[in-house]
Amino acid sequence: MCSVISRVKPVQRVLALARTRSLWTHNEGWSCTTTRIRRPCAGLRSSFEPLRASSRLYCSSMNQGPVFRQLFEPQSCTYTYVLADPQSREAVIIDPVLDTLDRDLKLIHELGLSVKVAVNTHCHADHITSSGLMKKRLVGLKSAISKNSGAAADIQLSEGDEITFGKHSLTVRETPGHTDGCVSLVLSDHSMAFTGDALLIRGCGRTDFQQGCATKLYESIHQKIFTLPDHCLIYPAHDYLGQTVSTVVEERRFNPRLSKNLEEFVNIMKNLNLPKPKNIDVAVPANLVCGLH
Amino acid sequence: MCSVISRVKPVQRVLALARTRSLWTHNEGWSCTTTRIRRPCAGLRSSFEPLRASSRLYCSSMNQGPVFRQLFEPQSCTYTYVLADPQSREAVIIDPVLDTLDRDLKLIHELGLSVKVAVNTHCHADHITSSGLMKKRLVGLKSAISKNSGAAADIQLSEGDEITFGKHSLTVRETPGHTDGCVSLVLSDHSMAFTGDALLIRGCGRTDFQQGCATKLYESIHQKIFTLPDHCLIYPAHDYLGQTVSTVVEERRFNPRLSKNLEEFVNIMKNLNLPKPKNIDVAVPANLVCGLH
Repeated sequence: MCSVISRVKPVQRVLALARTRSLWTHNEGWSCTTTRIRRPCAGLRSSFEPLRASSRLYCSSMNQGPVFRQLFEPQSCTYTYVLADPQSREAVIIDPVLDTLDRDLKLIHELGLSVKVAVNTHCHADHITSSGLMKKRLVGLKSAISKNSGAAADIQLSEGDEITFGKHSLTVRETPGHTDGCVSLVLSDHSMAFTGDALLIRGCGRTDFQQGCATKLYESIHQKIFTLPDHCLIYPAHDYLGQTVSTVVEERRFNPRLSKNLEEFVNIMKNLNLPKPKNIDVAVPANLVCGLH
Repeated sequence: MCSVISRVKPVQRVLALARTRSLWTHNEGWSCTTTRIRRPCAGLRSSFEPLRASSRLYCSSMNQGPVFRQLFEPQSCTYTYVLADPQSREAVIIDPVLDTLDRDLKLIHELGLSVKVAVNTHCHADHITSSGLMKKRLVGLKSAISKNSGAAADIQLSEGDEITFGKHSLTVRETPGHTDGCVSLVLSDHSMAFTGDALLIRGCGRTDFQQGCATKLYESIHQKIFTLPDHCLIYPAHDYLGQTVSTVVEERRFNPRLSKNLEEFVNIMKNLNLPKPKNIDVAVPANLVCGLH
């Protein structure tokens, strides 16, 4: 077990935060001090000093929130996210991609971040995760994925688990339907949700492979995402139209699939007739072992 | 003249805000009420109602700031930005691209925004602006570009001009060097700067065509951008590596060109040996007339 994860009773809809209770307290030797910076990743030049000092020197796009970066990988149109506590520099990376590992490590090093957890929102079928290789480059980094994904990782996530970084935390909400092991990650103040392939901007993940189930996906999104505050920002794992963010209220209103009733949604999903993802036979086996195949 | 633009004495470095004085006050019939929404763009379905009501229904990524959206056009790797006042819904769009006009209009309509000005940060050589066509689809929209660009537009921008949208405003800082008519737009609280092709993330615009001058670009960035607060977010017109944002302090420290001295910078820019932009012969003539060629 790991000190950055608090295992709690399952959260249910908007009552989630009120119900949380820490069960995981055992320390596995994480460096959680505010002064220690993980040393440069192998292969990165060390001729400069990373940013240090005050909380605003490397800034968030939120006035009071964590440092936040959205990064894009164009081949699979995947978004990777970095969130960090501006004081302690403790950070989390969500859905890192193998193809952009060096870019991401360079940024992490420049910003002087200490990345504690690399979370995959699910076992991806369209790209290979960098979480395994990133662990070899960042001392102390742990990988995390849903316990229902069937994939290996240091941390097996369940509903209500909290991933903490400094004063901030992300809460796990299980949102199966695209795959059985899909999770969304919700910032503790409910200002941001990282929805993986469950809810996309004006779309959603397909449900025709990898344990896909349209009914399950509809219920996940309506019960776990659409119950978040209207203004909660939606950051998905992909966008194919150059959109970078949405909000709960927009998706409730304008999502052409999820704004329908369950029967209409299931019918839409049944008739998408999408081709088989071209990388699935390589990506899924690789992602079952953190990309280290 | 136009009520959304305040013409002021030139701003100089960090003293910019203290020196501003409105010279443009004549009203040209803008609809600046908080309740009136510009009617749906031609070609958009009107079966739904755009978002209205409270300020947080469609949310900014800033706790107190304007509604903010970053949009990406993958062919030219161009970022388009939409900023809006959450109360009045008055909005500004920066560097809209012809190829993504329908996407942008759909979003504008869904968010219930009243876009007053479409600003081009300069006369682009790699894509065609949609500002001209957007004017035909959004009643009352004005186009804007630097007076030094040589391009036609409703509003010819100069140093210190302020583009207001509701309670927010962007101040024009002339940042020539990539072209003579390059401007950067700085949010009034200095939390964000839209730097066009002057300052890119860990890079900058090329200086080998369209009046390009490396010395001028270096001075522009050091005097007009690097004098902004450390935490000011840098939003460029392009990124080719999937990066979405930077900050002033990062670029001062880590920009491989601009962190050098002037002589080194000029030498770097002289030896880039870049190919001629493939769309320049089409894009520049089109952009001289708001993309309406």
